[in-house]
Amino acid sequence: MLIVQKYGGTSVASPAHIRRVAERVAATKHQGHQPIVIVSAMAGETNRLVELAQAFGARHGREVDVLLASGEQVTASLMALALQSLGVAARSFLGYQARMITDSSHSRARIRQLDASTLLQVVDQGTIPVIAGFQGVDQAGNITTLGRGGSDTSAVAVAAAVKADLCEIYTDVDGVYTSDPRVCPDARKISRITYDEMMELASLGAKVLQIRSVELANAHGVKLHVRNSHNQEEGTMVVADNPHGEPDDLERVVVTGVSLDLDQARLTLIGAPSKPGLQSAVFGPLSEAGIVVDVIVQNPPIDGRTNLSFTLSESDLPTANQTLENLAKQLSAQRVFSDSGLAKVSIVGVGMRSHSGVAHRMFELLAASGIEILMISTSEIKVSCVIAREHGENAARALHAGFGLAG
Amino acid sequence: MLIVQKYGGTSVASPAHIRRVAERVAATKHQGHQPIVIVSAMAGETNRLVELAQAFGARHGREVDVLLASGEQVTASLMALALQSLGVAARSFLGYQARMITDSSHSRARIRQLDASTLLQVVDQGTIPVIAGFQGVDQAGNITTLGRGGSDTSAVAVAAAVKADLCEIYTDVDGVYTSDPRVCPDARKISRITYDEMMELASLGAKVLQIRSVELANAHGVKLHVRNSHNQEEGTMVVADNPHGEPDDLERVVVTGVSLDLDQARLTLIGAPSKPGLQSAVFGPLSEAGIVVDVIVQNPPIDGRTNLSFTLSESDLPTANQTLENLAKQLSAQRVFSDSGLAKVSIVGVGMRSHSGVAHRMFELLAASGIEILMISTSEIKVSCVIAREHGENAARALHAGFGLAG
Repeated sequence: MLIVQKYGGTSVASPAHIRRVAERVAATKHQGHQPIVIVSAMAGETNRLVELAQAFGARHGREVDVLLASGEQVTASLMALALQSLGVAARSFLGYQARMITDSSHSRARIRQLDASTLLQVVDQGTIPVIAGFQGVDQAGNITTLGRGGSDTSAVAVAAAVKADLCEIYTDVDGVYTSDPRVCPDARKISRITYDEMMELASLGAKVLQIRSVELANAHGVKLHVRNSHNQEEGTMVVADNPHGEPDDLERVVVTGVSLDLDQARLTLIGAPSKPGLQSAVFGPLSEAGIVVDVIVQNPPIDGRTNLSFTLSESDLPTANQTLENLAKQLSAQRVFSDSGLAKVSIVGVGMRSHSGVAHRMFELLAASGIEILMISTSEIKVSCVIAREHGENAARALHAGFGLAG
Repeated sequence: MLIVQKYGGTSVASPAHIRRVAERVAATKHQGHQPIVIVSAMAGETNRLVELAQAFGARHGREVDVLLASGEQVTASLMALALQSLGVAARSFLGYQARMITDSSHSRARIRQLDASTLLQVVDQGTIPVIAGFQGVDQAGNITTLGRGGSDTSAVAVAAAVKADLCEIYTDVDGVYTSDPRVCPDARKISRITYDEMMELASLGAKVLQIRSVELANAHGVKLHVRNSHNQEEGTMVVADNPHGEPDDLERVVVTGVSLDLDQARLTLIGAPSKPGLQSAVFGPLSEAGIVVDVIVQNPPIDGRTNLSFTLSESDLPTANQTLENLAKQLSAQRVFSDSGLAKVSIVGVGMRSHSGVAHRMFELLAASGIEILMISTSEIKVSCVIAREHGENAARALHAGFGLAG
């Protein structure tokens, strides 16, 4: 099998860690597979480089990308040396050498194309390519980076380009869990999850896998295996919904996981004249101010006036509140109401599509725990409720138990 | 003026150092000049990276070059950020971006060509290019490095390619001295020195300037100015002999400097049959064994047999002795004699060419100090004497005073 293996920062934190990873890669090769390796910067290295940039007040842009890209460059060369020291032919590739072409959006570049031919040629010669993750190069030859955690996206892009049989994402946890084990001590590892569920479970999944890489894997049908580099356990397979049309054991469960986001605040624009273009008049300026909005709820208009509520990260509340106060005047809305100290609890599962009553069961479970629901948002495979932050962990535990997710 | 400025590791050792250098570069620009900057890795960084490679038993080769090149990459991006923070447009260039094309001899690559057009275009736009020194790229796009201290060579190569008016080499000393100030406390800074003298004064000069960069400067007529980044003093100008055919104040001094090498040992092949090919039969195998030979002296043959002596670094003595013992048998020589604990003291000066009696004066000065001369080697602008190591510093002081070099 042609297997892409991506090793995160904690898996390559020191020469001793790198040696252990090299042994694992070599073992994969000795089992008859053809590995292609993607590496992150050694744990702590990116933070060290970010601090150096901050000494000059810089956070983003061309030069910061040149700086940060050096972190993965170091790991890629060390991993190639580690493999060579085990008698295994290996060769490092930087972004430009792997022809990882991106757009020119420094610090958050998107991959445009990736020429697999050089990599496959090296693999055919029995040499293991070791690719510096997180980095690419634009058409003009400038170094770009894919954003924090971008090495996952590098790995999936390589797996898609070389048509790998499998893309293994190695990290320091055993996989994706039914809930955060710190909140639900009986959370268990999910053995299979769909791309859609993984994306909806962002708050659980983002800790182990950059969500954007899941999107890319979904688009190209790349089979992901999230696993722990410190043991040999099977991790979590991230796959297409009911792949190959076979009967799918995923169908047996309705809810796959419960996620909890404790950093929520809410703004409500009260009594805004209901007319076409209201939403874009509100969310355009917020987006320009760099505010990421989460749940949005709009009530049906009464007497030509409507209330528009949305949640956001609490740290964005002061800026967003100011922006919205200004908009309220322009739009002749009545006033702005602000809430902080909120949380969002969500249940996710592809099974919801074929099972009615899941949302209702969720509301019952929260009611039985005496938890008031402040906002509701639903999608095909997810139901989210905004509640008071003080009830967040209780809500997650009640749902985790109530939907039978405990290990 | 178009000025190339190269800053060594101690000049860019921390963000605070980098900021000071950026201020100096900005001042150069504000004076109406067009600077192009070359940077080394931050002091200590190359050693840190070398240690990482050694964890995998690696010292040279493709992957070590990828690893080490990251050091200059970090400084180049930070220097560009530092300049930008002062409101000066700047842009970093890695080896491949500056099109610094080398051969494929990893860890000791030689520059083949350098396309100045991109750099000059950037300069014309008012942007300061900040080039990562020490690194290049071969025709196939592999990262190469130029050997330790190679940033000096990068700087001279860039200066030659862009036809710079001046190449300033910034370091942590004030310039090249008439002798090592630790040995001769009255040594003074040389204000002008020729390329030839600089090359012959390797043991003094190599501390401030990679000798290979002087060769390159000589070949392309690049005017060098070696100076201290921590002050505004004029340093040492390294120039062509009698440039522009003008009357040259260099002619006034006969001896420019005194150098001392305390790491010398000697091997002598005694009673070797004198025949064509003897020397290549001896020095071929030594070269293959990685031994660098310094002074060579051969006595005229007596009865068809000759003695061949040479000096070398004391650490190479055991290997070289073994090699020579084997050769002695093959060549039917009588025996091998080995000496350790030697030193070499040299006087250098272009003035010697037009002044007779300089060597004689050197021998007189050493005799007056009671120092026995064991070997003599002469070139057009240099006379070297091998002596006992215990007399090394006294010899240097006697010559420094005797030739009137004291400040």
